[in-house]
Amino acid sequence: MSRKSAEPNDGQKPFRVPVDEIRKRTAKIQRELQQNGIDGLFIAQRVDLFYFSGTAQNGFLYIPAEGQPTLFIKQYYPRAREESGIDHIVEIDSIRDVPRQIAQIYGGMPETLGFELDVLPVNDFNYYTRIFKIKKYVDGSPLIFNLRKIKSDWEIQQMEKTAELTAKTFEYMRDAIEPGLSEMEFAAMAESYARKRGHQGKIRTRHYQTEGYPWHFLSGKNGAMPGLLDAAASGAGTSAAFPVGAGRKKIGINEPIMIDMGMVLNGYHLDETRMFAIESMPNRAMQASQIAIEIHNLVLEKASPGVALDELFEYSVKIAESRGIAESYLGAAGHKVSFIGHGIGLEIVEPQYIARNKKEILQPGMTFALEPKMVFVDEFAAGVESVFVVTHKGARLITKIPVEVFIC
Amino acid sequence: MSRKSAEPNDGQKPFRVPVDEIRKRTAKIQRELQQNGIDGLFIAQRVDLFYFSGTAQNGFLYIPAEGQPTLFIKQYYPRAREESGIDHIVEIDSIRDVPRQIAQIYGGMPETLGFELDVLPVNDFNYYTRIFKIKKYVDGSPLIFNLRKIKSDWEIQQMEKTAELTAKTFEYMRDAIEPGLSEMEFAAMAESYARKRGHQGKIRTRHYQTEGYPWHFLSGKNGAMPGLLDAAASGAGTSAAFPVGAGRKKIGINEPIMIDMGMVLNGYHLDETRMFAIESMPNRAMQASQIAIEIHNLVLEKASPGVALDELFEYSVKIAESRGIAESYLGAAGHKVSFIGHGIGLEIVEPQYIARNKKEILQPGMTFALEPKMVFVDEFAAGVESVFVVTHKGARLITKIPVEVFIC
Repeated sequence: MSRKSAEPNDGQKPFRVPVDEIRKRTAKIQRELQQNGIDGLFIAQRVDLFYFSGTAQNGFLYIPAEGQPTLFIKQYYPRAREESGIDHIVEIDSIRDVPRQIAQIYGGMPETLGFELDVLPVNDFNYYTRIFKIKKYVDGSPLIFNLRKIKSDWEIQQMEKTAELTAKTFEYMRDAIEPGLSEMEFAAMAESYARKRGHQGKIRTRHYQTEGYPWHFLSGKNGAMPGLLDAAASGAGTSAAFPVGAGRKKIGINEPIMIDMGMVLNGYHLDETRMFAIESMPNRAMQASQIAIEIHNLVLEKASPGVALDELFEYSVKIAESRGIAESYLGAAGHKVSFIGHGIGLEIVEPQYIARNKKEILQPGMTFALEPKMVFVDEFAAGVESVFVVTHKGARLITKIPVEVFIC
Repeated sequence: MSRKSAEPNDGQKPFRVPVDEIRKRTAKIQRELQQNGIDGLFIAQRVDLFYFSGTAQNGFLYIPAEGQPTLFIKQYYPRAREESGIDHIVEIDSIRDVPRQIAQIYGGMPETLGFELDVLPVNDFNYYTRIFKIKKYVDGSPLIFNLRKIKSDWEIQQMEKTAELTAKTFEYMRDAIEPGLSEMEFAAMAESYARKRGHQGKIRTRHYQTEGYPWHFLSGKNGAMPGLLDAAASGAGTSAAFPVGAGRKKIGINEPIMIDMGMVLNGYHLDETRMFAIESMPNRAMQASQIAIEIHNLVLEKASPGVALDELFEYSVKIAESRGIAESYLGAAGHKVSFIGHGIGLEIVEPQYIARNKKEILQPGMTFALEPKMVFVDEFAAGVESVFVVTHKGARLITKIPVEVFIC
């Protein structure tokens, strides 16, 4: 396999997923396929394609339960060849070529084929089944997430690089925040800073209805607005057409400002929140922010392998109750969320969830964005969010931003 | 119906879709449903929901073939009530409540129900069909686009407001461009300028595989890189994980820079491209840019009601041939696109397409982004892109940016 580095950039060595990573992932998903009696997995979704092949070029990946995977590339073969740790890459004109190719390469078609049915639209699926003519189709996405939820050491290193960029960006925001800037303007300034340093800008989300964007900057009352997001606070947004995140409201002095920023470097996301205030933080908001930090720290202490996800969630609710903020915790009455954390990696929200009734236990290598938040109706939102990894010794923060309230 | 304006923003009157627009759209889609023997349409996708209801809050819209539509809102009812021109809004806890509500409100369930099968994932569809228990499901998306492709005067006015913002932003870029800025850095500066003035930042795309982002800024050789996009030029992007659009390459003097920027104001998109150069544009790039402008202008002259889409496409190819640039036109050999324009409105790419073999004819109210582009392998990309509306008198530019090469 030859992997040249012809990517035009700033002279840095181009980012590549190590071949060894791709091989380990392939071996693991093949074990899953075998255990579940699935003969092959057909991957179309771009993030899964990148995860299993190292390239996000236009194409499809076929992973048989046994043997070598084949990467089918529509466009652009030279970039895919250069980027991918997959040995066998075939250039195609159209997906119509794929079934015949699979039959040739593997000496026949699989009997049971897995698709990403959590994202594949009905019309696409109907087309695929017409051209593949296979007996049985199953949803391969749970198997994929069974792998993706456990990050390798290399993946944790990538997330740590993203964390370095977010720490710098939060430092920048500490200096740059000024009264009179609109939420959206300040968010754009922070993003400019980060994009100059490698932030890809586009946040990856999986479900077609999920709104993903890096600029969840909410000041004062805008933090207290419920809205379309499954989040404690949705924000005003720029208009009724995009009613989430930063809006046109100007940031003022002496008001609580919740800055929740998504960041992506080389495909790996971080999702972090800190409370900011210019000059001073009002007392109630400061108390709420400190309680959020306390919950965050106590949950982290408890987040060891073997602990159930819902145990962490209920533990946080108990602390909130004991501190007298149950009414505000996790959102306004009638609009509370039932989670305090979500998996994170190549997408900003991934299974698993630290949530009510989630019985799965923490395992080493799982990464979560932990975000205990509260909403005081008609007043403000308060909270904190960090990303951590579960290790054998317990939770370790990936986030490098100080866990404190920023008074600027 | 009461519609208060409680949205916290900069004191401007909040943007609302007029009630009259919603009523006309409802009447039109109901005619389509009746003509196609579909008893009702169930709308979940956010942009369609906004189009037919005026709100993008978390919910679903049911439009029966006859009678009043019902908007079901999970979250957040007060915002939906304030924004929407739909009279009948019902607050729900879950989509599980919807079938029973429909049966009650309409005295029974529809026999044939339309869903947005072009975007609805298989797992969601399977869930919907389980809870709806209806005889026949059809794809409602072609009917939706049959309406959406013809813009009302009010919609054209919205796009004109977006066009004013892009014209200002291109003027800003003319001043702000400097050698040594990276593509991504310069793109982020331009976006900051625009986001301060209302640009929502997130580009709306429909299909789950489409990469939508506003920062398609490609300089020099980066313009000549084929990649995953169905576009003449894909760009370097920030890494193998997001290999499209602006990259880390620094902008230089005397090189062709293709700036293709998406913009959204109040939900309405524009998509425009101009060639920039600092100090001077190399001769071949200047010639290519001028030919692109010539093709753009000649196609516009011909774009009258009754002309077929493919006629415009083939006409552009003929001009390119007669000017001796057939080899570069529409992309590198083997990677050419087969379109020069796409519909645009609430999503950045909408049907119809000015493309090979598209026999549909132009109708008044259709809006297109017209983008004749060319790629010189290993050298650069050149092109131009404007948005126009088809009127009874012919094409009228919505774009307000001068159609010229910008030497800065």
